[in-house]
Amino acid sequence: MSLVIAGLQHPGRSGDVAANLEILAAAARDAKGRGAELLVTPEMFLTGYNIGEQVGALADVGLVGQVGRIAVDVGIAIVAGVPEPLPGGGVANAAVFLDDAGTEVTRYRKTHLFADLDRGLFVPGEALPQPVSYHGVRVSLLICYDVEFPETVRAAALAGADVVIVPTAQMEPFAFIAETLIPVRAWENQVYVAYVNRTGAEGDLRYVGRSSIAAPSGAVLSALPPDQLEGLVLATIDPAVVAEARLANPYLDDLRPDLYAARALPEGRP
Amino acid sequence: MSLVIAGLQHPGRSGDVAANLEILAAAARDAKGRGAELLVTPEMFLTGYNIGEQVGALADVGLVGQVGRIAVDVGIAIVAGVPEPLPGGGVANAAVFLDDAGTEVTRYRKTHLFADLDRGLFVPGEALPQPVSYHGVRVSLLICYDVEFPETVRAAALAGADVVIVPTAQMEPFAFIAETLIPVRAWENQVYVAYVNRTGAEGDLRYVGRSSIAAPSGAVLSALPPDQLEGLVLATIDPAVVAEARLANPYLDDLRPDLYAARALPEGRP
Repeated sequence: MSLVIAGLQHPGRSGDVAANLEILAAAARDAKGRGAELLVTPEMFLTGYNIGEQVGALADVGLVGQVGRIAVDVGIAIVAGVPEPLPGGGVANAAVFLDDAGTEVTRYRKTHLFADLDRGLFVPGEALPQPVSYHGVRVSLLICYDVEFPETVRAAALAGADVVIVPTAQMEPFAFIAETLIPVRAWENQVYVAYVNRTGAEGDLRYVGRSSIAAPSGAVLSALPPDQLEGLVLATIDPAVVAEARLANPYLDDLRPDLYAARALPEGRP
Repeated sequence: MSLVIAGLQHPGRSGDVAANLEILAAAARDAKGRGAELLVTPEMFLTGYNIGEQVGALADVGLVGQVGRIAVDVGIAIVAGVPEPLPGGGVANAAVFLDDAGTEVTRYRKTHLFADLDRGLFVPGEALPQPVSYHGVRVSLLICYDVEFPETVRAAALAGADVVIVPTAQMEPFAFIAETLIPVRAWENQVYVAYVNRTGAEGDLRYVGRSSIAAPSGAVLSALPPDQLEGLVLATIDPAVVAEARLANPYLDDLRPDLYAARALPEGRP
C-alpha cells in the first residue's frame, strides 16, 4: 500500500518527439532500477511546450501509444505530459497516466491556462480530476499553473487524494512557486505533491527546474537544484503518512464550508 | 492613498491587563514616532492567550474603551486582539479595529478555532469579514489559525482587500506558517499580509515570533527574528502596488469558480 514515484527533470528536445521518447525510455529504465513504480515527465514533455502552432501537428502522431510501449517494455507506470487532440477540434494540454501494462488509468486536461502562451494553443479542460487508485495510493493530477490556485489542491485532497502529481514547465521569474508554494500546498492539505519541471531554455523561456516531492508535513523529501539539467526526484508515497498528518493538522476537518459557500464574486469579476 | 502599518511583536504579560495596556501605549508612541498610522497587536494581546477560564472574567473589564483611549492619546489607529463577551453568552476571540479617534471601524471574531485550546474557551465567529476602507486602503482581518486556510485570504482578496491583518499567537512547532505560508498567501492573492505574533512562553506554549509583513509579490517587506522578544514590523500598504501585482499575476481573474462550485464534500466529511 505505497507507491514509489520518480519525476524526470529534463530540458527535453523541443519539437523532437523521437528524441524525447528516447529520453523517456532511458529515464524509465533508470527510475525502475532505482525502485520507482511510476515515472512523471514535465508538462508537454513529449513534444516540447513552447513550440507554437507545431503542437497541433505533433498531437496527432500517436504519442500515448508510444509512451505505453515504454511503460510495458520497462515495466513502469508513466504520467506523461502530451498535447491531446480533442474530438471536437483543438488541442488540450494534457497529462496521461498509463499503468505498467500500458493501459490508460486516467487523463487530465489543464483547466487553468497560463497567459497567451497557453490560451493561444490549448482548449481548457472542463473538470478537475477525480483521484484514481494505483497500488493502494489515491493519485490526482494537475498541470503547472493549476497548482498555483489553492482551490485545485484542496479539491483533490477533499476527494481523497494521497498525492497530487504536477507536470510543469515553470519558467523564470517564478522560482518562488517551486521553492515556496509547493511545500505550502502539501502542508495545507496534508497531501504529497510531486512537482516535475523542465530545465534549460525553449524559445524565450528559461525553465527554473527545482523539481521536488513534498510530504504532507510540508517537508521536501526530494529535490533537484535549478542548474541540474537532468535527473530524477524520487520518494515513496505512503497513505498511512497522509492519515497521520491529517490527525496532526486537521485542516480538512476544520474547514468552514458554510462561510466559503456564502462567498460572492464581486461585481465586475467573471 | 496609502497606510503605514506597524505590528507589535511582544510576549505581553499573561493575565495582566494593566501591564499590557502600558506595553500597548508605549508601542503606540514608538510606532507613531516611526510614521505608522495603524498599530496591530498579537492575538488576545490585552489579556494573554493561554490563560484558561480567566479569559471570561477579563473580557468584561472594558478593554476596548481602554484601547480607544490609547488610540486617541497617541493619535494612531489600533487593531487589538481581545476577548469579546457576546450578548448571548460566551466569549469570542476577537480583533477590534479602532481609528485614531478611538471609534470602532470594525471587529472580527475568529471563525476557525484552533484545537481544544480555542474550542474550550471561545465561541466561533459566524462570518468572514468584509474589508473596510481606511486612509484609502481596504483592510480585512483574520486571526491566527484562520489564515492557514487559503479560503479565508481568497475571500478577502475577492472582496477587494488590499491588506489582510492577522493578529496571531503562533507556537512551536509551527514556524513554517510564519516563514513560508504567509508569503504564499500574499502571493497567491496579490495582497499584503501583516502577521503579528507573540513571543516568549505562556503556560506550555512557546511562541515562535517571526512577525512579518509580506507584499503582494510574496516578498517579505519587514520581519523580526524569533529571538527578538519585543519589536515592530513596519511597512507601507499601497493599493497601487496591489493593482500592479494583479496585472502581473492575474490569479483572481484566472479563477475557475465553475470548477470549484461543483466540488462536493465527500461522504463522511462535515
